[in-house]
Amino acid sequence: MKTGKNILMGIALTSALFVSAQEPVDYVNPFVGTTNYGTTNPGAVVPQGMMSATPFNVMGSEDNKYDKDKQWWSTPYEVNNKYLTGFSHVNLSGVGCPDLGSLLLMPTSGELNVKYTQYGSEYTDEVAVPGYYSNMLTKYGIKCEMTATPRTSRARFTFHRGQGNLLMNLGEGLTNETGATVRFVNDREIEGSKLLGTFCYNPQAVFPIYFVMRIDKAPATRGYWKLQRPMQGVEAEWDGYSGKYKLYTSYSKEMSGDDVGAWFTFDTTEGEAIEVSIGVSFVSIENARLNLETEQPAGTTFDQIRAQARKKWNEDLSRILVEGGTEEQKGVFYTALYHTMIHPNILQDVNGQYPQMEGDKILTTDRNRYTVYSLWDTYRNFHQLMTLVYPERQMDMVRTMLDMYREHGWFPKWELYGRETLTMEGDPSIPVIVDTWMKGLRDFDINLAYEGMYKSATTPGKDNLMRPDIDDYIAKGYCPLMEQYDNSVSHALEYYIADYSLYTLAKALGKTEDAKLFYDRSMGYKHYYCKEFGTLRPILPDGTFYGPFDPLQGANFEPSPGFHEGNSWNYTFYVPHDVKGLAKLMGGQKRFVNKLQMVFDKGYYDPANEPDIAYPYLFSYFKGEEWRTQKLVKELLAKHYTTKPDGLPGNEDTGTMSSWAIFSMMGFYPDCPGVPEYTLTTPTFDKITIKLDPAYWGTDKLVIRKEGGDGYIDQIRLGGKKYSKYRLTHKDLIHAGEITFVCK
Amino acid sequence: MKTGKNILMGIALTSALFVSAQEPVDYVNPFVGTTNYGTTNPGAVVPQGMMSATPFNVMGSEDNKYDKDKQWWSTPYEVNNKYLTGFSHVNLSGVGCPDLGSLLLMPTSGELNVKYTQYGSEYTDEVAVPGYYSNMLTKYGIKCEMTATPRTSRARFTFHRGQGNLLMNLGEGLTNETGATVRFVNDREIEGSKLLGTFCYNPQAVFPIYFVMRIDKAPATRGYWKLQRPMQGVEAEWDGYSGKYKLYTSYSKEMSGDDVGAWFTFDTTEGEAIEVSIGVSFVSIENARLNLETEQPAGTTFDQIRAQARKKWNEDLSRILVEGGTEEQKGVFYTALYHTMIHPNILQDVNGQYPQMEGDKILTTDRNRYTVYSLWDTYRNFHQLMTLVYPERQMDMVRTMLDMYREHGWFPKWELYGRETLTMEGDPSIPVIVDTWMKGLRDFDINLAYEGMYKSATTPGKDNLMRPDIDDYIAKGYCPLMEQYDNSVSHALEYYIADYSLYTLAKALGKTEDAKLFYDRSMGYKHYYCKEFGTLRPILPDGTFYGPFDPLQGANFEPSPGFHEGNSWNYTFYVPHDVKGLAKLMGGQKRFVNKLQMVFDKGYYDPANEPDIAYPYLFSYFKGEEWRTQKLVKELLAKHYTTKPDGLPGNEDTGTMSSWAIFSMMGFYPDCPGVPEYTLTTPTFDKITIKLDPAYWGTDKLVIRKEGGDGYIDQIRLGGKKYSKYRLTHKDLIHAGEITFVCK
Repeated sequence: MKTGKNILMGIALTSALFVSAQEPVDYVNPFVGTTNYGTTNPGAVVPQGMMSATPFNVMGSEDNKYDKDKQWWSTPYEVNNKYLTGFSHVNLSGVGCPDLGSLLLMPTSGELNVKYTQYGSEYTDEVAVPGYYSNMLTKYGIKCEMTATPRTSRARFTFHRGQGNLLMNLGEGLTNETGATVRFVNDREIEGSKLLGTFCYNPQAVFPIYFVMRIDKAPATRGYWKLQRPMQGVEAEWDGYSGKYKLYTSYSKEMSGDDVGAWFTFDTTEGEAIEVSIGVSFVSIENARLNLETEQPAGTTFDQIRAQARKKWNEDLSRILVEGGTEEQKGVFYTALYHTMIHPNILQDVNGQYPQMEGDKILTTDRNRYTVYSLWDTYRNFHQLMTLVYPERQMDMVRTMLDMYREHGWFPKWELYGRETLTMEGDPSIPVIVDTWMKGLRDFDINLAYEGMYKSATTPGKDNLMRPDIDDYIAKGYCPLMEQYDNSVSHALEYYIADYSLYTLAKALGKTEDAKLFYDRSMGYKHYYCKEFGTLRPILPDGTFYGPFDPLQGANFEPSPGFHEGNSWNYTFYVPHDVKGLAKLMGGQKRFVNKLQMVFDKGYYDPANEPDIAYPYLFSYFKGEEWRTQKLVKELLAKHYTTKPDGLPGNEDTGTMSSWAIFSMMGFYPDCPGVPEYTLTTPTFDKITIKLDPAYWGTDKLVIRKEGGDGYIDQIRLGGKKYSKYRLTHKDLIHAGEITFVCK
Repeated sequence: MKTGKNILMGIALTSALFVSAQEPVDYVNPFVGTTNYGTTNPGAVVPQGMMSATPFNVMGSEDNKYDKDKQWWSTPYEVNNKYLTGFSHVNLSGVGCPDLGSLLLMPTSGELNVKYTQYGSEYTDEVAVPGYYSNMLTKYGIKCEMTATPRTSRARFTFHRGQGNLLMNLGEGLTNETGATVRFVNDREIEGSKLLGTFCYNPQAVFPIYFVMRIDKAPATRGYWKLQRPMQGVEAEWDGYSGKYKLYTSYSKEMSGDDVGAWFTFDTTEGEAIEVSIGVSFVSIENARLNLETEQPAGTTFDQIRAQARKKWNEDLSRILVEGGTEEQKGVFYTALYHTMIHPNILQDVNGQYPQMEGDKILTTDRNRYTVYSLWDTYRNFHQLMTLVYPERQMDMVRTMLDMYREHGWFPKWELYGRETLTMEGDPSIPVIVDTWMKGLRDFDINLAYEGMYKSATTPGKDNLMRPDIDDYIAKGYCPLMEQYDNSVSHALEYYIADYSLYTLAKALGKTEDAKLFYDRSMGYKHYYCKEFGTLRPILPDGTFYGPFDPLQGANFEPSPGFHEGNSWNYTFYVPHDVKGLAKLMGGQKRFVNKLQMVFDKGYYDPANEPDIAYPYLFSYFKGEEWRTQKLVKELLAKHYTTKPDGLPGNEDTGTMSSWAIFSMMGFYPDCPGVPEYTLTTPTFDKITIKLDPAYWGTDKLVIRKEGGDGYIDQIRLGGKKYSKYRLTHKDLIHAGEITFVCK
């Protein structure tokens, strides 16, 4: 029996094997974040791939520590679990709500059994590297291997002699939506669709996935299963399948239902490998087939696909080369960089077709159409990383956002495969777009973008998708607490930063009046400052502060009046666009610094939730206090970021936690979204070479060096010249050529 | 509140309206057989139509007397029920197991509600005539009207002012199979498929129906619903739809599941009619659309379809014209004739395509492909009626049976939409085919037919689909009782009559050896005759009779060792091919007659189950006893056949009960399937004109007259000449020109 501890050791050993190699891809450990609610998974995926093929081990057995049906659960894999019920195809990585993680492909052997509480198996010998995953099913002695292309997967299952089986389970999965239809095209191919969605229990945000699955060996027998509705009385007496799984053995046309699947049986020889290819699409079955035939042309081998995936990962990871630092630090760094290339992922098929945002049309693009925008998270640092290191992706991500506005009339908030899930709050597209444009990536229609941003910033009424409480926000300058847990302060804080971004853009575009309007709005945060507690505090509709008030209420995801996923301490310093103004409100630099330091000292800081993740950098706004940033960032990196499965501070939030680590380890951090500036801190490595794309930046690299001892920064040199500040504009960063941190 | 009594009175009045008219179609009362387990329904259908659109009132309310989920139930409609949950599309009429009866179309008004236990309504003002059904929903004040073409339906719903709704419920229905998928093609059209089957709980006999539905008005809103799987714990807390019906309001791609539907809402004016057209196919959605567009070309009105259906019914019913008799007797007669033209029904689409028998292929025919062969019932008299009056249909029905043999390797036993359900026992295709051929309808490949019949009569082993216990039957001449309720005697009795048919055919084809083999086998019934009881009696594997034995055990569908759906008395005289031999076994004519008379006198005779329905005619094998036939047939007709809803003796068995009445009322009955002869009895009417097709029979009509008083037959004249026998060959019947019964 494998224990949780053994798993961790096994993985550490596995990852250690790769640590001895030399290429960036070899430093990646896909198990990082697979516990501690990191919600990443070790599945096979390529950068920004639509497809991921992931071991699914979160249901069906009491032996699992975590069961998706027994608690709030948002990932197909937990490293401490034991019981595998298949490999799920197309998954979300690092999100807080369950969705996708369906099309469960499972090999078994012996007598056919389609009940997941029985057919599942424990496993050993897990291996996960970018683009490849493998394990050994202990119950069956079957070796499983998965690899992927952007829109397809390939599985290789190695059987013993006897009866081998393949199951495609369309009834279970991580998504809370149900309903699928499947059809045998021939003995070796099935096609179908399955409904996904209801992300964060938004009941209308649903969408279909289409698939085609091919096996490379003709089965001995094949059919479907369906869980039968329970019958009662005389019907139940006659129908032995009432409430049970029924096998359909002589039917091959459409099979639809809540809990259906397709099965194949084979006569296998000892060591015989059967390979399964799956193509998916969010447009149609035909496109799923086209994707499969295009990305896996006849004759493509498993090993070719695996090698291709590795090559692509290594190329992408090599945009940043690090030298010095420990092997562990390199592992943390490249794993983090790996995690920033999972989402957003491509949505369009090989022919460029994709489903319209919140509509029925099928549209066509000639570039990448992205999906999975967790913007409340990613607007803070992820898109800033994309802008700098992967500007061609950031451009397409922004262009996609503009297309969404064209198609739907709104920029995205939390977009998932063409549906606006309306998860979390605020107007996060604004800082993303403004940040990108202000940094110089401007090859998109800024006037249209401004139109869309202006719309969400000014459209009155509850139908304003981005700002449903905009009326009060405009009239009063803040959002009053209208219900006990309405997150009103969190809403307003998001609107302030979005409006500040809009202000900077309006100013740049010469829209003086708009600029004034949005600037004034962005200062509205001051309404919430309560001298009595020295924190932000919810305001009641009558203008008085909400009470009784406890700034600590809201830790650990407990509900808190006015604050979303956090307490007042997690939000009080979240005025990134007016840190000095906030400091003044608090009584000056000293009081600000002491209070912020107290947040860390007393453990109020949550390294895993977005509103406060830039707190460590705020010290550096004040001369003489920069050491605190350097000290805290180093400590936080060491404490929360490792190459172990619990090596993320918490939910990865589609690259946000990792982006924090990457910037922090490189020595600069974009602490104010929408403002093209960074705060500097001590880099982790002796030398960091960021390959810059000359087409975007006019220069081909930025080198960051760390010299001297292990102490605080003594001196910074920018392009060889001494630099006396701890904040740096994006323009200066790009053109520095080399930044050297000389430490004491 | 409508009471059961009121319904019956209402219907009697309704039918009375039509009784005053003159054309055959006007004598039909589709409510006959809609109670007393007749299992017919009053839905709109055309002769041999694939489509029927039927009020569905057998679920969802405690106010219903009969609920499909609370007992064994096989019809979509019961006249004593009250609560309508839609109009089901494509139904079975007169069968003993639940199937089809799905695609429930329901109009409602006011707030949208998709829960059938709530959206259903009581109704008044039922009208049913061939090809048309109407009622008024009391809850909504909506008038519902349905009419049909061979493969399509048209509904007209007349609304009050306000919000009108249409529901297409794909989750419920009579079938025990579940699972459907549906998709909006546009705001006014949906398409999809639903799984049907599991007839008589044969788990593998499943097949899909495809449909396209169009509405003639653009809806205000539209969407789907789906019953959500129940969730537990934290999931159920978050998801308000757990275990409930969820409305999907902004999604229009594939919706699949166990319990799904599509809904539309409209703003209706007072008296506004909305029409809905549905096309179906058992091949594909494309064919369903083609069927719809072909049978309801643009501009086709509801009234045109209704008129066309009436015209077709009247043409078909007019093949037999009756004069004299009471209006009630004419109502019984034409309603019975109507009921013989429901099944078998066409399976092929307008382009000739149909699904292969027990296979995946789509095949094409240039004539009618029939389906719904309840042959254990219909081989006894229904096909004989078709042969005589509708020979072009009987030919295509036989050709279809040959095609099934070509496609599947077996003739049908109980075929349902391309699946062999294996319901009931025996080898009933043999007497049907032999009877047809012996009567002179020979335009089919008799050699192939013989090959197929010989196969089922001789293939050893349990894999013989028609005769799974053939090994013992061949070795011992009978089927021993292997299990307590294995119906072994019933099996063997069916094999005897089939083998007798084969004997007559083999003889006619010059296959002397085969003829002897099958003749000898057919006499094996004598094994079962037990002198002690004077009845047939099960035989144990050791050759001794089964005991303790009660020839009455098995009445009212209670299980009985050796006998299927009946007791020994219901089977003892079922040796139609050797009535005189049986009499000899019983000790001569007198003992036979007395015993048979006792069966009637003591109430052992079941007029509603097939094995004994020819009993009344057996008396006429014996000179001087013919009056018993005449007396009993007249009494049975009067007692069991009326124009009231309970006007069938029991389950209609797809036309078998009605065929009994039709032959009996015309004065002749085909009491031995496979033998081209009839037994004569007193006709009900003064004059009966059967239009014969000269292309098949070389003559264009047969006139039957009744003259004299109300007593027994005194004299029979055949073509003007005195005829002294009470049995008549088919050839003599056809060429008689006129048969006159002179009664005392």
